[in-house]
Amino acid sequence: MTDIDLGYALIDAERAKRTGASEAVFCEGKTVEQAEGIIIGMREKGIPVLATRANAELAKKIGDRYAEAEYDEASRLLRIGGQKKHRGLAAVVCAGTSDLPVAREASLTAEFFGSATVVISDVGVAGIHRLFSRLEELRNANVIVAVAGMEGALAGVIAGLVSVPVIACPTSVGYGASFGGLSALLGMLTSCAPGVAVVNIDNGFGAGYLAHQINSSAFGAVDNN
Amino acid sequence: MTDIDLGYALIDAERAKRTGASEAVFCEGKTVEQAEGIIIGMREKGIPVLATRANAELAKKIGDRYAEAEYDEASRLLRIGGQKKHRGLAAVVCAGTSDLPVAREASLTAEFFGSATVVISDVGVAGIHRLFSRLEELRNANVIVAVAGMEGALAGVIAGLVSVPVIACPTSVGYGASFGGLSALLGMLTSCAPGVAVVNIDNGFGAGYLAHQINSSAFGAVDNN
Amino acid sequence: MTDIDLGYALIDAERAKRTGASEAVFCEGKTVEQAEGIIIGMREKGIPVLATRANAELAKKIGDRYAEAEYDEASRLLRIGGQKKHRGLAAVVCAGTSDLPVAREASLTAEFFGSATVVISDVGVAGIHRLFSRLEELRNANVIVAVAGMEGALAGVIAGLVSVPVIACPTSVGYGASFGGLSALLGMLTSCAPGVAVVNIDNGFGAGYLAHQINSSAFGAVDNN
Amino acid sequence: MTDIDLGYALIDAERAKRTGASEAVFCEGKTVEQAEGIIIGMREKGIPVLATRANAELAKKIGDRYAEAEYDEASRLLRIGGQKKHRGLAAVVCAGTSDLPVAREASLTAEFFGSATVVISDVGVAGIHRLFSRLEELRNANVIVAVAGMEGALAGVIAGLVSVPVIACPTSVGYGASFGGLSALLGMLTSCAPGVAVVNIDNGFGAGYLAHQINSSAFGAVDNN
Amino acid sequence: MTDIDLGYALIDAERAKRTGASEAVFCEGKTVEQAEGIIIGMREKGIPVLATRANAELAKKIGDRYAEAEYDEASRLLRIGGQKKHRGLAAVVCAGTSDLPVAREASLTAEFFGSATVVISDVGVAGIHRLFSRLEELRNANVIVAVAGMEGALAGVIAGLVSVPVIACPTSVGYGASFGGLSALLGMLTSCAPGVAVVNIDNGFGAGYLAHQINSSAFGAVDNN
Amino acid sequence: MTDIDLGYALIDAERAKRTGASEAVFCEGKTVEQAEGIIIGMREKGIPVLATRANAELAKKIGDRYAEAEYDEASRLLRIGGQKKHRGLAAVVCAGTSDLPVAREASLTAEFFGSATVVISDVGVAGIHRLFSRLEELRNANVIVAVAGMEGALAGVIAGLVSVPVIACPTSVGYGASFGGLSALLGMLTSCAPGVAVVNIDNGFGAGYLAHQINSSAFGAVDNN
Amino acid sequence: MTDIDLGYALIDAERAKRTGASEAVFCEGKTVEQAEGIIIGMREKGIPVLATRANAELAKKIGDRYAEAEYDEASRLLRIGGQKKHRGLAAVVCAGTSDLPVAREASLTAEFFGSATVVISDVGVAGIHRLFSRLEELRNANVIVAVAGMEGALAGVIAGLVSVPVIACPTSVGYGASFGGLSALLGMLTSCAPGVAVVNIDNGFGAGYLAHQINSSAFGAVDNN
Amino acid sequence: MTDIDLGYALIDAERAKRTGASEAVFCEGKTVEQAEGIIIGMREKGIPVLATRANAELAKKIGDRYAEAEYDEASRLLRIGGQKKHRGLAAVVCAGTSDLPVAREASLTAEFFGSATVVISDVGVAGIHRLFSRLEELRNANVIVAVAGMEGALAGVIAGLVSVPVIACPTSVGYGASFGGLSALLGMLTSCAPGVAVVNIDNGFGAGYLAHQINSSAFGAVDNN
Repeated sequence: MTDIDLGYALIDAERAKRTGASEAVFCEGKTVEQAEGIIIGMREKGIPVLATRANAELAKKIGDRYAEAEYDEASRLLRIGGQKKHRGLAAVVCAGTSDLPVAREASLTAEFFGSATVVISDVGVAGIHRLFSRLEELRNANVIVAVAGMEGALAGVIAGLVSVPVIACPTSVGYGASFGGLSALLGMLTSCAPGVAVVNIDNGFGAGYLAHQINSSAFGAVDNN
Repeated sequence: MTDIDLGYALIDAERAKRTGASEAVFCEGKTVEQAEGIIIGMREKGIPVLATRANAELAKKIGDRYAEAEYDEASRLLRIGGQKKHRGLAAVVCAGTSDLPVAREASLTAEFFGSATVVISDVGVAGIHRLFSRLEELRNANVIVAVAGMEGALAGVIAGLVSVPVIACPTSVGYGASFGGLSALLGMLTSCAPGVAVVNIDNGFGAGYLAHQINSSAFGAVDNN
Repeated sequence: MTDIDLGYALIDAERAKRTGASEAVFCEGKTVEQAEGIIIGMREKGIPVLATRANAELAKKIGDRYAEAEYDEASRLLRIGGQKKHRGLAAVVCAGTSDLPVAREASLTAEFFGSATVVISDVGVAGIHRLFSRLEELRNANVIVAVAGMEGALAGVIAGLVSVPVIACPTSVGYGASFGGLSALLGMLTSCAPGVAVVNIDNGFGAGYLAHQINSSAFGAVDNN
Repeated sequence: MTDIDLGYALIDAERAKRTGASEAVFCEGKTVEQAEGIIIGMREKGIPVLATRANAELAKKIGDRYAEAEYDEASRLLRIGGQKKHRGLAAVVCAGTSDLPVAREASLTAEFFGSATVVISDVGVAGIHRLFSRLEELRNANVIVAVAGMEGALAGVIAGLVSVPVIACPTSVGYGASFGGLSALLGMLTSCAPGVAVVNIDNGFGAGYLAHQINSSAFGAVDNN
Repeated sequence: MTDIDLGYALIDAERAKRTGASEAVFCEGKTVEQAEGIIIGMREKGIPVLATRANAELAKKIGDRYAEAEYDEASRLLRIGGQKKHRGLAAVVCAGTSDLPVAREASLTAEFFGSATVVISDVGVAGIHRLFSRLEELRNANVIVAVAGMEGALAGVIAGLVSVPVIACPTSVGYGASFGGLSALLGMLTSCAPGVAVVNIDNGFGAGYLAHQINSSAFGAVDNN
Repeated sequence: MTDIDLGYALIDAERAKRTGASEAVFCEGKTVEQAEGIIIGMREKGIPVLATRANAELAKKIGDRYAEAEYDEASRLLRIGGQKKHRGLAAVVCAGTSDLPVAREASLTAEFFGSATVVISDVGVAGIHRLFSRLEELRNANVIVAVAGMEGALAGVIAGLVSVPVIACPTSVGYGASFGGLSALLGMLTSCAPGVAVVNIDNGFGAGYLAHQINSSAFGAVDNN
Repeated sequence: MTDIDLGYALIDAERAKRTGASEAVFCEGKTVEQAEGIIIGMREKGIPVLATRANAELAKKIGDRYAEAEYDEASRLLRIGGQKKHRGLAAVVCAGTSDLPVAREASLTAEFFGSATVVISDVGVAGIHRLFSRLEELRNANVIVAVAGMEGALAGVIAGLVSVPVIACPTSVGYGASFGGLSALLGMLTSCAPGVAVVNIDNGFGAGYLAHQINSSAFGAVDNN
Repeated sequence: MTDIDLGYALIDAERAKRTGASEAVFCEGKTVEQAEGIIIGMREKGIPVLATRANAELAKKIGDRYAEAEYDEASRLLRIGGQKKHRGLAAVVCAGTSDLPVAREASLTAEFFGSATVVISDVGVAGIHRLFSRLEELRNANVIVAVAGMEGALAGVIAGLVSVPVIACPTSVGYGASFGGLSALLGMLTSCAPGVAVVNIDNGFGAGYLAHQINSSAFGAVDNN
């Protein structure tokens, strides 16, 4: 399958074959028309679509055209196709309710590529017993995504308690010295517990993608589309 | 008592009367001769001396002159006089062994001004059960100083477990994205648990000073010298 | 009392028992529906509510449901319940009129938990005699909260004049090299007077919470709800 | 097995049981005596030792005491015990010769915990054909560690070519606008290819640890000591 | 030709003679009236106009007055006059569709001054084969402008493949650790391949200007107006 | 004259006596009601009013109440009273048209306090002959305010050409690596020509105030109101 | 007098005529041979020499050659010639003893160019009464240089008390969040009192130069050499 | 010619064919043994050697082995082979004597690849007439490299005076707010004159490389080795 050239975009049609996962569409900075054109181009080739940071206008247009399209308002994820069979387990844990949109972006992404997921919300370190009460559940997962803003301590605390990799996703939740997620980012990068790796601030998609890759190692082949 | 004017320094002789604590001598950036002159000036007026970041040369000179001088190599604190009676309890907790010099600066400072202290070392969040095993001890204190580098998560975790104020002291322990203590500093400032206030990076002295102020509220008057 | 699980939030019902203060609700980043759900959940268990950064829509909804709810527009604090008896004294001092909303968040928070407070406004260091004329008042307090933007010098100046702890709260008031409160934050952290500890930029809630903790040491037990 | 309390350190003896990997000793900021004491304490309990950033003096002392100790000068890793059987495959790729010490820290760490590794050196993007000539090898690995300083582009380029997770480890190699590894760190965090997660600058240990965790998912249980 | 003094602006009428290129009008921060006045002043002297960051209101006003004015919405470039004959070849390559407005500003600027250009879109390093398929085209150019946000790796990869100068133009496309284009900027500055020089973030104009200067060296004299 | 206490503000009524200049009102962050109250309080004591960053609503209200009030839209300065006699000469030079609002704030401020001023616009270093053609004029001034965004080179170039102090005022004009005026600020601070001192980004008021102080040294006493 | 061309340096021989002050030699980054050559070149033309950041080796060599050379170890200033008659008054105030070397660089520079100076040491805001006791002296000066590290509050406090310009010189004294003088720099730039302008961190030379310029306005012509 | 694999390094033997210039050896971060091995490997294939940041030990070893090796102490460049015929003209201009080592790295690099060069030193903007006196010379060049630390204004001033590209190379010369070259870097990136592109701080090699590329466009083919 050759790349699809729209002039303004060159869709990487071989991506699934090369990396095990089809290309995702990052909608920010694209016009609605451009994003729409890319999605249509992908559907024409039968490529499943995962569009991140999609706004409501795009979601409406795509929803009108493709009945099977699903749009999640909180995370702004727009999906068409994607795996129906979810295997293994990727746990997505978030520190506070305000981190939920990013956590949801991570879990829906991992599901899209074929992982079973569980979301555990509002177990930040300010009341750490809440985390302990969910520990059993966490230990069942093959990988954990820890989503947190402010000081981002959740990732390191979890990594000290489990034997599986922790993907840390800092969020821009917070104010002042949070500096748009910088405090959480630095905290996660300098975690004194090993077993933590970090994705970009608010990058639930990247966290979910990686979680799926790791989770799928545990149950066998990467076989999306 | 009027200020003591040495030309290069103007010793604030009324400080104890005004703030309840005599002036401390910050030795960094001063020549050994200047620091020595200031200490002698203070001793001549009978003011107890707490000199921070004192090097070995200064310690030697002062030790030779004043038999009662005490020098702690790890924290570089040099003390003459200071309270002999220690009351209440200020707990100083540190995340790792590398944070001990700063923790020691904090505990020795609080003792100098009259607080009883306990130091609890190496209970960082990477093995959080270590903290829990010391929780009873922590809850006996009137104030807790949490000393940590890297992600600095210790302060927030403790603040979520106790009812007393937590003074967070970030350290420059770490490398890379620690940026000389910045990661710990930002993490402590953005702690999602309230009840945390932060002093400068590696400022064990300031943390101990404040801990004494808070501790002394609980047992009565501030009565240093 | 077990935690209250709303799916998107897990209310820490034991917090008051553990830390002496019930959980506060940080409304930023939560939908009005989520914040409302959390508040209702807390009221059903009889937990007093302190909600920070509440917008007018939420305040209206909660006000319609709970007659005793109080909303302060300037600070965006929403309160239900809280201590009626105010003891000791926490002084909240602010540098300029523009810092008042944060100062108000601090004083209302301290009152909510049971401290008597006084707010002293517009005594910044540009006209330092204004501060001196209020010094007597400041010296009556068990703790002082210093709220300032721009260079944040107020905290250090006060700490050199009094014997009680100073909680410094930088604000984002200013422009240019203030960098959203960074200049005040760094200035407060590097105060050459000891006895200062710093909370996050614009974190009047955190400052007030800590002021209450310290103030309550001086008059006895922490006994909120 | 209870924690080992040395006063200055509290060795987390249950760590292997809890997280599948024994505690590592971070030697920076510890005195030689402290590091030595911790290592002896661990050996007495039969815990395998992985000490990072160990200097030559410590290595000498430990080597004299334990014949089986191995010290790698380039990476400053000191090891006693560790897995002899290496399974699966973790590939460690580095952009330039100057990145080799960090790459070596990663590969030796992964081996210590039981992973087979391969190191591919000097395949940075300035001559990208060098990477392509090793692609087959890379695709055999269960996980790839990409080590690079300067612009850190290697991680994203690799992630666009393979189906396994890429652990990106920025290094402080470079000067000027590298700002001690910041440029590589930010570049790796903002990689436009998904499937990349980042550890701290120069944290070869963390990268190797995580690579082992991921690699071991693919071949079964995590079974270190 | 003397400078044109409008009071608020002093148009550099000799610029083309001195530097080979007439002055461009940077519209941001100017009122529509000011920008309009400058453009009219230039036209009265017969100076070709290239106005950057022009908004729609200005474009409308100028379009109504000068029939030959051309406005490109995506890049916000407004042009009157400019070279009709385009020589040599400057290739403008961009990493993603979202970078197109900046790429377009670069190519239209280079054309305005007399260079032939080609724009190659969406060939970022996440699918690097897309770049290779256009390599022949790139090698025909006398200079290449590489436009990319996020990690900005494209510039260095290209510079390792061609013998002509690469002008790197970072964009503010991205989020989180992109910090408004900082990650791309630092990545491009620290490119391990030589042959890259960098202009300001989103400065398509500057990149196109420089590309024209370099391109015109190859085909002879710089002869704009 | 005692301070005027409005509760939310404490007007420093003795300021003119102490510093030679009455207090200015910084309107940002104050409600219109607060700013209005302060201005009325000052007028009641006969204090001349200089209000910075005043919005149109406030200007309207004050204009309706005080016929002599003057509002400058570009700089958002609102003035009542102020010196009518302008002496000496303060030159205000700005690099580009976009810097004019800040330059105007500086010149109007200096005039308010009694200095004669001249504004020289659009003489940035990109066409440095424009500066040279105004050099005579500059050399007549007792002080020069240099206003520039982007690289802020203007201040240093001027300081190398004249014998009077240069007050450098960076502006937030620019984009990308200007980082809100940081590039100009740093450039001015590190000017290789001595004779430059810097005020905050966009602080035309501070620059004009200081220019007046310096200018008035040259012609005698500081005698505002 | 034409410029003196040494190949590696081009001495600006007309500087005194143009700016009222001869060129100073910044020794950092120059070899001893280069600095020596420049100084000899200047002396041959009879230009007075002010060399900053001169090391002991250079001072020795120059002292051996020119008997009238004066070297101040603390500030590393090396002077030959310079004004013998000192007029007006520039006061140099420093916050702490550690700031003295920079203060000294400022006062010696101002004297070199012809200003009388007074240095007032150790009157930082931590004991603000010390400043008040010297206020009379400060008010006699035509200009004040305020030298301070850490939070740099001294400049703003003084500016609120006097009617003359305050040149603020931040120092790198401090640690942690001082970030090499950044905290003092930002604090001085954002001073809420007007009448403050800032020079580079540790730039005592620049502060003294400017102080002389301002001071000399008050007593008449600038007439150095 | 295939790549030369030394295990720790993979020499890009086809680089000259692909990019018109052989690979340079960046010595920083490599052991002397590694750098030596790479140079020998290259010589064995007859590849000309340009080694940057070479220390004296390496220079000695290589000089002993290859008589034709040339080492420049100031710039730490080590060269073997390289073009003997120098064509066109690349002018390297530096602001101050302290910038000379970087300027020299640029000019020697450009010469190595075949460009004629001229170095013009100490013509910074503090005495801008020095630059004007060399303008004719500058206008003869096909490209200009502007090397400057501190505020880095030189690049923009030159770009406003000439018609050829200016490669700006910031240096780490300066102190305080120079932040290791950051001020110069930002100033150059935000130059208000177009025609400037920037390389990394202290990257004389990169500047010289690019200057040669641009210069060689003007006189024909790129024909190094």
